Amino acid sequence: MPTISQKGQLMPQSPIRKLVPYAEKAYQEGKVVYHLNIGQPDIKTPEVALDAVKVHSLDILAYTRSEGSDGYRDKIAAYYNNHDIKVTKEEIIVTTGGSEALLFAFGSIMDTDDEIIIPEPFYANYNGFSTASGVNIVPVISKIEDNFALPPIEEFEKLITPKTKAILICNPGNPTGYLYSKEEIQKLAAIVKKHDLFLIADEVYREFAYDGVSHYSIMQEESIQEHAIMIDSVSKRYSMCGARIGCLVSKNKQIIATALKFAQARLSPPTLAQIASEAALQTPQSYFTDVIDEYVDRRDTLISELEKIEGVKVAKPKGAFYCIVELPVKNSDDFAQWLLENFDVNGETIMVAPAAGFYSTPGVGLNQIRIAYVLNKESLVKAVNILKEALKVYKD
Amino acid sequence: MPTISQKGQLMPQSPIRKLVPYAEKAYQEGKVVYHLNIGQPDIKTPEVALDAVKVHSLDILAYTRSEGSDGYRDKIAAYYNNHDIKVTKEEIIVTTGGSEALLFAFGSIMDTDDEIIIPEPFYANYNGFSTASGVNIVPVISKIEDNFALPPIEEFEKLITPKTKAILICNPGNPTGYLYSKEEIQKLAAIVKKHDLFLIADEVYREFAYDGVSHYSIMQEESIQEHAIMIDSVSKRYSMCGARIGCLVSKNKQIIATALKFAQARLSPPTLAQIASEAALQTPQSYFTDVIDEYVDRRDTLISELEKIEGVKVAKPKGAFYCIVELPVKNSDDFAQWLLENFDVNGETIMVAPAAGFYSTPGVGLNQIRIAYVLNKESLVKAVNILKEALKVYKD
Ligand SMILES: Cc1ncc(COP(=O)(O)O)c(C=O)c1O
Ligand SMILES: Cc1ncc(COP(=O)(O)O)c(C=O)c1O
Repeated sequence: MPTISQKGQLMPQSPIRKLVPYAEKAYQEGKVVYHLNIGQPDIKTPEVALDAVKVHSLDILAYTRSEGSDGYRDKIAAYYNNHDIKVTKEEIIVTTGGSEALLFAFGSIMDTDDEIIIPEPFYANYNGFSTASGVNIVPVISKIEDNFALPPIEEFEKLITPKTKAILICNPGNPTGYLYSKEEIQKLAAIVKKHDLFLIADEVYREFAYDGVSHYSIMQEESIQEHAIMIDSVSKRYSMCGARIGCLVSKNKQIIATALKFAQARLSPPTLAQIASEAALQTPQSYFTDVIDEYVDRRDTLISELEKIEGVKVAKPKGAFYCIVELPVKNSDDFAQWLLENFDVNGETIMVAPAAGFYSTPGVGLNQIRIAYVLNKESLVKAVNILKEALKVYKD
Repeated sequence: MPTISQKGQLMPQSPIRKLVPYAEKAYQEGKVVYHLNIGQPDIKTPEVALDAVKVHSLDILAYTRSEGSDGYRDKIAAYYNNHDIKVTKEEIIVTTGGSEALLFAFGSIMDTDDEIIIPEPFYANYNGFSTASGVNIVPVISKIEDNFALPPIEEFEKLITPKTKAILICNPGNPTGYLYSKEEIQKLAAIVKKHDLFLIADEVYREFAYDGVSHYSIMQEESIQEHAIMIDSVSKRYSMCGARIGCLVSKNKQIIATALKFAQARLSPPTLAQIASEAALQTPQSYFTDVIDEYVDRRDTLISELEKIEGVKVAKPKGAFYCIVELPVKNSDDFAQWLLENFDVNGETIMVAPAAGFYSTPGVGLNQIRIAYVLNKESLVKAVNILKEALKVYKD
């Protein structure tokens, strides 16, 4: 029997996958499970996007240009310009989700065994994209005590080797909810210029910035035009994860030309979803105001409920819709499984994402979980109560 | 300024890209250009597929399972079973086009510097997927004189090294139109078993088999259940290239588990397109009969017109909608450019794909072009006439 690749063996599983059979068992037992573990928002997709595909007049569902349709690129460029990001459509490659944009970015700038520095905890699928691309993630630890702020620049510099090609940040962060300040972005700009590195910013949560703080994009930092690669997506912005439309944006012409070759090999991003994404750009500002109000309300509820639990530490998120919570347990993997298998409050339990999967340094984050506040407030309150009761009886 | 990766530099451009500026110049000069160079069929998408997205009742366009929605996988499994391929939905991973299925297959079975043997000429984007995956294509030449039949098994065996992980065929072939016989598939089966290799078959043109010959899939060859990986797509079957739905099919559980990890990293295939693809499975058989009649008619016209031109050699395609044509020219790259730049018959010219891009052995195929018969018969006749007139005056 022929054998699979080493790469295939190394490809990580999602931190949640292991829990899926236990969740399924819980359903079978008739338990209600509150899902605090997922990144799929419960917010409705703007109707203007959903309606656009209902009135399409295609008779052949054809490929678009590999870099995305002209119509969509024109409009998304206009959107960025309205958000203080000066780009033209030639600086944008439409991708199949932010996921594919990350893959194109990795492939365009790194070869086998090259290194990319990422503040951890980080979005778990960066591991998968790195393994698939044959490159190594070098983590720099950010701490819950600091609310997951940017680690000191010296910490980055210690890690830079001749193999280092880039720094990747997620802003606002999944799983931390941390929103980098302009000053932090400028510190990163200085370091990538000094060491001639790329700076990739995953800004798929860019609209989700709270407390009146506005998001500062790496694309606004003119001194690093040749270094900056922005990753974006409609998935979270318009709660249309299933569209699978993202983009890679850069003012570096070589990057665009190179990413375009990756894009050409796979021919085209999805056509129907580009129609929906183009229409989504007409979404009124009130939609975002409402959504942000809703998330802030949920976040505030969640944090204040969590803070009531003894022994629980939480970093207050300033963006996105996740937070990392430190629990008085030794191993949150075991705890998460136990919650599904052995615990309930009146037939209800919770599913959480153990945080170890968001770290690449072994042994870090073992007592942490990630909570996504993509449930309504009432459910969140119930869910946190279940956590509280569980911690009273759990023994590890 | 930071530099792009070697991989990025090596990523090939599509064989047609170089010609695009010349085509644009031709348009600007008001020329009519018959596109014999593309793989986007002009056939209409079945209405049942286009209509399905018009009546969707989604209020959140959410991710589906990474391996594809249960509904679609159930039905596509049933479809295969109706086509003599015994598979269950667990043996299918829905991908973003056949393109992504190829990438997942490459990643699942090969590491950096591993080798894959492919009969050439082959689909040019195999080069891109190999470069992106860091692996090497080892070509085995198939010849126009043999109608591009499977090269003798000894030719494959000569090329097998410890780094060889797989053989990849395209059946029916793009760009050759060759349809492998059951005997040829069995020869391949014997060799992959003997040398413990995977056999990947790109069967995205599986419905396009002509002259009453039925397509024989590698999935029908029970002796190689653990070796066989089938790549499929709705792009050509239903003329819905823009959907971006394909799949990877294998009875090898390790392959499915590994490809699933790649699929999980990118979260989900496109949701709207899965709705359209599921509905497309209701397309009546008469649609295919009509489409095949149309392609056979076009092919027969094309071949008989080409055969009238002195010095032109053509392999009669038995499937798909491409053929390779040998011309009395030294360099078809130059010829293709000249056609756009310097030639017309009453203001009309043609765009063809130079065939060198479909070979990886340098210097082979220089006097060949690929013609796609995705134009109606009248246009094909006019286009071949332009080719005939052009060859009368062209000097290289
Ligand atoms: C930080 C981050 N980046 C990228 C993605 C990828 O999203 P998509 O491929 O749906 O655009 C996600 C999805 O959850 C994410 O959380
Ligand atoms: C031989 C072959 N394989 C795969 C593909 C990829 O098609 P898609 O990604 O649209 O399914 C094509 C498209 O032209 C092709 O010709």
